[in-house]
Amino acid sequence: MKKVAVVLSGCGFKDGSEITEAVSLLVGLNQAGAEVSCFAPDIQIPVTDHLTGKPSGETRSLLAEAARIARGHISSLDKLHAKDFDAVAFPGGYGAAKNLCNWAEKGAQCDVNPEVKRVILDFYNSSKPIGALCIAPVVVAKVLGDKKVTVTIGDDAETAAEIQKTGAIHEECPVNDYITDRETKVVTTPAYMYGDAKPNEVFAGIFGLAHELVEWA
Amino acid sequence: MKKVAVVLSGCGFKDGSEITEAVSLLVGLNQAGAEVSCFAPDIQIPVTDHLTGKPSGETRSLLAEAARIARGHISSLDKLHAKDFDAVAFPGGYGAAKNLCNWAEKGAQCDVNPEVKRVILDFYNSSKPIGALCIAPVVVAKVLGDKKVTVTIGDDAETAAEIQKTGAIHEECPVNDYITDRETKVVTTPAYMYGDAKPNEVFAGIFGLAHELVEWA
Repeated sequence: MKKVAVVLSGCGFKDGSEITEAVSLLVGLNQAGAEVSCFAPDIQIPVTDHLTGKPSGETRSLLAEAARIARGHISSLDKLHAKDFDAVAFPGGYGAAKNLCNWAEKGAQCDVNPEVKRVILDFYNSSKPIGALCIAPVVVAKVLGDKKVTVTIGDDAETAAEIQKTGAIHEECPVNDYITDRETKVVTTPAYMYGDAKPNEVFAGIFGLAHELVEWA
Repeated sequence: MKKVAVVLSGCGFKDGSEITEAVSLLVGLNQAGAEVSCFAPDIQIPVTDHLTGKPSGETRSLLAEAARIARGHISSLDKLHAKDFDAVAFPGGYGAAKNLCNWAEKGAQCDVNPEVKRVILDFYNSSKPIGALCIAPVVVAKVLGDKKVTVTIGDDAETAAEIQKTGAIHEECPVNDYITDRETKVVTTPAYMYGDAKPNEVFAGIFGLAHELVEWA
């Protein structure tokens, strides 16, 4: 049985992992026959009220919030090593661009959380596939830009242009499909980068990515 | 296009809606061709830390937390009326047994949130189908027990016995299937009442329920 690690960035698309994407990934990976383990950085994050869309002024534990998606079965990201898994995958949501790195603020000039960077390089250097959904491909682009990784975030020209500043290559892709870079072993799907997509369309793209990742692992 | 209302009870299985169940329901209903709208009671709820499983001492807005699952597109439950929809469905999670009613504390003697009770009776009296997942069938059993509604919560004998005290009938059901009561138009599936179920098994049962609900609506 292939073992896949999923790295969450919170719980809720405005300040953490996009929930439909995270669940679609867990369902897809299990359906493809993988044994899945969840991880998240053990850091404090600012909270966005998902009704108003505005900062609430609170902070929460990223790890404890991500545990809501993982039903409590989650470990701190510093416990994740490529030697123990066959693949790794990152759901999207603003958490990927605000908590795993500061792309939301600095774009291609962003800094990546050191544990996140270590994990991406660990899987890359072990020739093990890496999946990224929605906006999460920017983190992979930032870390693997010098390897000329090809990724997709859909058809958003501004984000695509920013991605290319890292050295990465951007390809357009519809919501229900995914892009595979056979050189770097990176698989990406746009998901809710198409903001008015339906949950079943997002599910379809992620389901495809999950099967590709497990087949390849 | 059939219109289906989904009633959430928070965000996270220990103090709100079970997230995989809620997302599986949204994906399934959309895949079955329905237009879906989310609702939740506008009340404050105590928080459970999903890492430790213990009360955190905080309270949060149920509606604002449920908005994390609904991507901000959610309305207060008092806005939900059967005349505007073709069916209604309730995901599970302890939120269904602690926030929509106090079954977790009082079992068959529980009180149901007045808006939740009104909504269930509104759909029942309008002959429109009602779906309930995991532990949520206890709420439907409590409200429609005198109609001898048949529901499932899987194979947990203690909860099944408590359900029968409401006047409702319990039938066993595996995780990847669902039970239909043609008299009361109630459809139920056990989901994470099987606590060690895999996300794709839970998805399968809910996917079937969603299609049954939309076909019937």
